[in-house]
Amino acid sequence: MVVALYVQKFGGTSVGTPDRIREVADHAARCVKRGDQVVLVVSAMGKETDELLRLAGDVSTSKPGREMDMLITGGERKACALVAMALTDLGIESESFTGSQAGFLTDTTHRNAKILEVNPRRIADAVAAGKVPVVGGSQGVSTDHDVTFFGRGGSDTTAVALAHALDADACELYTDVPGVFTTDPRLVPEARKMDHISFDELLEMTATGCPKPAMRSVELARSYGVKLHVRSAFSWVPGTWVSEEPSMENAIISAVTHDTSEAKMTVSGVPDQPGVAAKLFRSLADADVNVDTIVQNVSDAGATDISFTLPHDQVSAATTTVDALVAEIGAKGVVTDTGIGRVSLTGAGMQTNPGVAATMFETLSTSGINIEMISTSAIRISCVVREDQADQAVTVLHAAFELDKAPADRSDI
Amino acid sequence: MVVALYVQKFGGTSVGTPDRIREVADHAARCVKRGDQVVLVVSAMGKETDELLRLAGDVSTSKPGREMDMLITGGERKACALVAMALTDLGIESESFTGSQAGFLTDTTHRNAKILEVNPRRIADAVAAGKVPVVGGSQGVSTDHDVTFFGRGGSDTTAVALAHALDADACELYTDVPGVFTTDPRLVPEARKMDHISFDELLEMTATGCPKPAMRSVELARSYGVKLHVRSAFSWVPGTWVSEEPSMENAIISAVTHDTSEAKMTVSGVPDQPGVAAKLFRSLADADVNVDTIVQNVSDAGATDISFTLPHDQVSAATTTVDALVAEIGAKGVVTDTGIGRVSLTGAGMQTNPGVAATMFETLSTSGINIEMISTSAIRISCVVREDQADQAVTVLHAAFELDKAPADRSDI
Repeated sequence: MVVALYVQKFGGTSVGTPDRIREVADHAARCVKRGDQVVLVVSAMGKETDELLRLAGDVSTSKPGREMDMLITGGERKACALVAMALTDLGIESESFTGSQAGFLTDTTHRNAKILEVNPRRIADAVAAGKVPVVGGSQGVSTDHDVTFFGRGGSDTTAVALAHALDADACELYTDVPGVFTTDPRLVPEARKMDHISFDELLEMTATGCPKPAMRSVELARSYGVKLHVRSAFSWVPGTWVSEEPSMENAIISAVTHDTSEAKMTVSGVPDQPGVAAKLFRSLADADVNVDTIVQNVSDAGATDISFTLPHDQVSAATTTVDALVAEIGAKGVVTDTGIGRVSLTGAGMQTNPGVAATMFETLSTSGINIEMISTSAIRISCVVREDQADQAVTVLHAAFELDKAPADRSDI
Repeated sequence: MVVALYVQKFGGTSVGTPDRIREVADHAARCVKRGDQVVLVVSAMGKETDELLRLAGDVSTSKPGREMDMLITGGERKACALVAMALTDLGIESESFTGSQAGFLTDTTHRNAKILEVNPRRIADAVAAGKVPVVGGSQGVSTDHDVTFFGRGGSDTTAVALAHALDADACELYTDVPGVFTTDPRLVPEARKMDHISFDELLEMTATGCPKPAMRSVELARSYGVKLHVRSAFSWVPGTWVSEEPSMENAIISAVTHDTSEAKMTVSGVPDQPGVAAKLFRSLADADVNVDTIVQNVSDAGATDISFTLPHDQVSAATTTVDALVAEIGAKGVVTDTGIGRVSLTGAGMQTNPGVAATMFETLSTSGINIEMISTSAIRISCVVREDQADQAVTVLHAAFELDKAPADRSDI
């Protein structure tokens, strides 16, 4: 019999209560009983990370990174001990491991540490001894011997890095939905679970309404060729496989997603001179503003408008930065718009099918939805629309591209 | 200027809320500003350890020791990170350390690990660099590289062991009362805070109504000659010093304490033969029953009664054990009495003052309080009385021995 080794990651919701923790243990126990080797990676229980952050805010204003990491990683550590206990109850030998014990060596960038090396000797020993190791996600030990945290969503990164280091057959990322969908199933009942998606397509899909692995873990999986399986924590039905290969089904469009977590800022009357845009975006980067889409309109009488999108909660920092620059760069003014939504089509076949963009714009237009900004990549087209039209835009696009049907059954574009 | 180094331990109540954590940081910051070097040891916040134990009980029935220690030590770890943050806010450089980081190497007895070695290199380095280290109490790393917990009250042990390893000038144990009292001040308003007490006297004082360091830490401090200072967390008034030297004041009696947490079992009609008592108490030890006082009455017609006290919550385990033995050892029967209280007088000068016992028995008798058991050590006399008379017994003894007065002002016994 060939024994397969799986790294299985369970998120905060999956370990949110004592009952859920026992269900996770039960799931892992069944995998072991059918002959698989299993290594678990767990996030902190439910809202625990938020609670620890709130507690830190109640105590401290400075919140130094080293101490924040010591505090926050306690959440995953608590969860992995509890899951190991639940496994023991089921007669499965199990041991919990902190990131440090699991061999995660990182740099010293607290709150957002990068993995330098994974030496999972203790994990491999435990597996060889027939045990199920349970590893606290999103954490390691720095070259300064301090506890480090990988940031929110870092448990996915732990799972992928561990799967690579252990040469596992696959890294299974368990969520509370059955896989990756063609769009948000809560919004569009016809949304279809995809059996397969490429790393690139998954990376281009925006977050809202479509639970997906943290960006960084997908990038890591792509770099090391780790096979990902995004699936439901409480079902044996296969979810969505993510790998390097383009879809066997050769779909042009795989998904339509939307994101209403961003705002748009427009700096108007910017002199059309070299270095002006560079100065603007360097200042924003220095202020830790995560600019996403940038659009610069064509120049009109020596001046142009530059628009960009950014997360809502960074608008105030960005406003301070941009206001201070307006006079210096000789611009006319700045307008902030928090009422936008971004709708994106993703698909590996898009680049060779110019009809896709046309169909997208026509579909939105026919539905009376105005497009305010457009940006594209090789496998994605995004349109910024009014926030209150974003849901409608998703629905009409999902229908127009027949995403409810299997790719082979769709009409040609 | 001579710089003094203090290890300061703050218990769960002292770090129970964000406000309290800031007060602890403020206290340590003032010590630093007046020129002292300070190392902090903290317990878990408030009732956190209880909450973690409850959570473990909700998840698991087996609760393996290795995993329990991983879980429970998270409480102290959280508290030390928060205290270090609060110190940073006050402009004091600070770093938190887990037991493992602080150099506590232990054996592999989970839930109740024993310290093998303390190598506080990182703590000493931090102090030398002008920082205030904050150490999570009651924890270390085992010779198997696993996280270990010293048990409840283990933070006092951490503090004493660290004070010894760092050759600190004193180990300050901060509580929510100003020091060690001659009796429970909530019961007897005239109770007097002692300026000094010897290790032996402190060890003999029973727990109820008189907050005092954990037994194990006092024994450790005595072994290594670490000076203890039991004091209030939120006052600059000196508390009670504990050291090897007998009291300068040469008091005969230092304190009267009581304990209503025990029950009494009497095995009657035990054959007066060698080995019978040994068999009884070996069986109780095997059943993990913590027998405290043992009294065997004089033999009457070849049979005797053996009485002993034990914690209330171990009565059921003890009953099972003793019931099974009664026939085997040829005893008549067993009677359990949960309505008892133990009242104790403690004092270094007691051994050379036989009048103390007489005064104690007379005082109780005059107040109509019947004595059911008596046991003595070199520096303690304990009487078991009815539970509902224990408070009255404490009050009348405190008055009879004039413990409200400074020792020099008391009458001769």
